Amino acid sequence: MVFHNIQNLLDDLGLDEVEVVVLANGEGVKALLQKPNVHQRQIQRLADQGVKFLACQNSLRFLGLDDGDLLESVEIVPAGVSELVKRQTEGWAYVRP
Amino acid sequence: MVFHNIQNLLDDLGLDEVEVVVLANGEGVKALLQKPNVHQRQIQRLADQGVKFLACQNSLRFLGLDDGDLLESVEIVPAGVSELVKRQTEGWAYVRP
Amino acid sequence: MVFHNIQNLLDDLGLDEVEVVVLANGEGVKALLQKPNVHQRQIQRLADQGVKFLACQNSLRFLGLDDGDLLESVEIVPAGVSELVKRQTEGWAYVRP
Repeated sequence: MVFHNIQNLLDDLGLDEVEVVVLANGEGVKALLQKPNVHQRQIQRLADQGVKFLACQNSLRFLGLDDGDLLESVEIVPAGVSELVKRQTEGWAYVRP
Repeated sequence: MVFHNIQNLLDDLGLDEVEVVVLANGEGVKALLQKPNVHQRQIQRLADQGVKFLACQNSLRFLGLDDGDLLESVEIVPAGVSELVKRQTEGWAYVRP
Repeated sequence: MVFHNIQNLLDDLGLDEVEVVVLANGEGVKALLQKPNVHQRQIQRLADQGVKFLACQNSLRFLGLDDGDLLESVEIVPAGVSELVKRQTEGWAYVRP
């Protein structure tokens, strides 16, 4: 549903008009695992259109995962919640699935 | 719960002090169907107080619904997620149920 | 998870760099009850670090509770949703669990 919504956003506003970051926190980081990942093609397609994927380091540690377990296009941030607060302060809109 | 919270917001801040838009996305659009709709009276009461109801066209299409299925007071937006991003950029606060 | 995320936020950004308010609404107010409360120690530890805990009066009333049922560090606001809207308007970031 999230990935579907992002594609709608890109299609509706246009790739040059919007910048999208997916921030995975808590159990959400599992959606960015290398395998099994039923959404891999959809994620790659979004990444090819400039969507950035971030995963929370604290959540990974809590779940016994590390960045080697994630899809190649995913970047790590130290704390998902800090990233969320900082970006909103910078003027990013927030859409919680 | 959403409708209840909106009434609380209107009662607490006053009708002249706040503008409320309900944006229905995904399965949420079903809450705005003409029938069956157990919330119809509550929705009409909020609409009478100036609350605007928007439904996502993409979600409707995905669910095999169209605007004829919705309550009369509901307006359609092309993509719920774009509307959400645009309004936050314009300074609207975001309350996710 | 919420309390865990807040501790991560404080640890990551530093106590002097961020101000955190937990706003409990609807069923969420039950997390701030005096007893039973499995999170009491965690809540107190956050309160000691300056985190503020607010509970919605409307929600308490709806659930047949009052402020005497809540942990001592909790303050009451008339309507959680108004508080949320007002604070976003003042520039606070919003993180919905």
